[in-house]
Amino acid sequence: MNDDLPDDDDLPRTSPTVNLEGLAADQLRSFIERIERLEEDKANIATDIKEVYSEAKSSGFDVKIMRKIVSLRKKDRHELAEEEELLDLYRAAVGV
Amino acid sequence: MNDDLPDDDDLPRTSPTVNLEGLAADQLRSFIERIERLEEDKANIATDIKEVYSEAKSSGFDVKIMRKIVSLRKKDRHELAEEEELLDLYRAAVGV
Amino acid sequence: MNDDLPDDDDLPRTSPTVNLEGLAADQLRSFIERIERLEEDKANIATDIKEVYSEAKSSGFDVKIMRKIVSLRKKDRHELAEEEELLDLYRAAVGV
Amino acid sequence: MNDDLPDDDDLPRTSPTVNLEGLAADQLRSFIERIERLEEDKANIATDIKEVYSEAKSSGFDVKIMRKIVSLRKKDRHELAEEEELLDLYRAAVGV
Repeated sequence: MNDDLPDDDDLPRTSPTVNLEGLAADQLRSFIERIERLEEDKANIATDIKEVYSEAKSSGFDVKIMRKIVSLRKKDRHELAEEEELLDLYRAAVGV
Repeated sequence: MNDDLPDDDDLPRTSPTVNLEGLAADQLRSFIERIERLEEDKANIATDIKEVYSEAKSSGFDVKIMRKIVSLRKKDRHELAEEEELLDLYRAAVGV
Repeated sequence: MNDDLPDDDDLPRTSPTVNLEGLAADQLRSFIERIERLEEDKANIATDIKEVYSEAKSSGFDVKIMRKIVSLRKKDRHELAEEEELLDLYRAAVGV
Repeated sequence: MNDDLPDDDDLPRTSPTVNLEGLAADQLRSFIERIERLEEDKANIATDIKEVYSEAKSSGFDVKIMRKIVSLRKKDRHELAEEEELLDLYRAAVGV
């Protein structure tokens, strides 16, 4: 059992809405604070990602195209090939 | 200067689009791989956040309301109080 | 059957990917153009909505709060009341 | 002056937050109701768009690729050509 969580018999009544005091309030606060710490880590990494893009930009690379490369590399190769084949077909049909 | 990046005189010609080989290609790949590693870290933290919410849910807490609490706690207290005062005023005026 | 669509035996081969010519190409183009006309209508209405908000703003109303009112009014009254009761409970517990 | 809006001297005091009664309340309600009607129109069109896509799908077309076509057709041709040239260059450089 995760040490942040009390053992079973101290769990809030079936629904915490009845009396959110004492243990249930502490438990809620602890969940919220854990989430906030993780959200902060996530925000810091998002900042780091932005910094790499701006470093690349100042090295002369195009950020918008780099983002497309990053998203293309997430795709399965065969799926990507099939998708692009169909896209070319549709592009030819509607002339774009 | 970050060791991933070559020093100035090896930087790609004014625009990398002309000849993206050798150093410029390596440089681009290095930027992309750094971004991918950071994106992976970010995705892992997003998974961790989901796990905390589901842990809270199984403890009887309402995830949707918890998300509102997390977002309220990001706001400046005075701004929040002003906003809520105005919201109450408008709610009374239009009856919601 | 919608008159834009050919009757059954003119439908594209089981999968249009094989030969997207003639009828299938016309059919695709017709679908795309219908979607584009609808997207344009939708964009015009989005512009109209922005104009009403800016009209309200110049009349002294707070757009951000108005948006909250619009979203609150979409909710079922009882659900909204329950949600707000739980939110107040959680806010008191974590002090926000 | 738009007939929905009262003439100048009936406008709410410098800030409507002080006393949102009478005219200001009516004015706010009228703005909200105009926005709601437009939002409803917009939602109906979004439903129509979905219906065209599902009609196309049942005719054998790939909706995901159709969405790409719709978005490509919004772009300026020359910009699109430049973008795709650069994308091919970067794809070759990082091998995707």
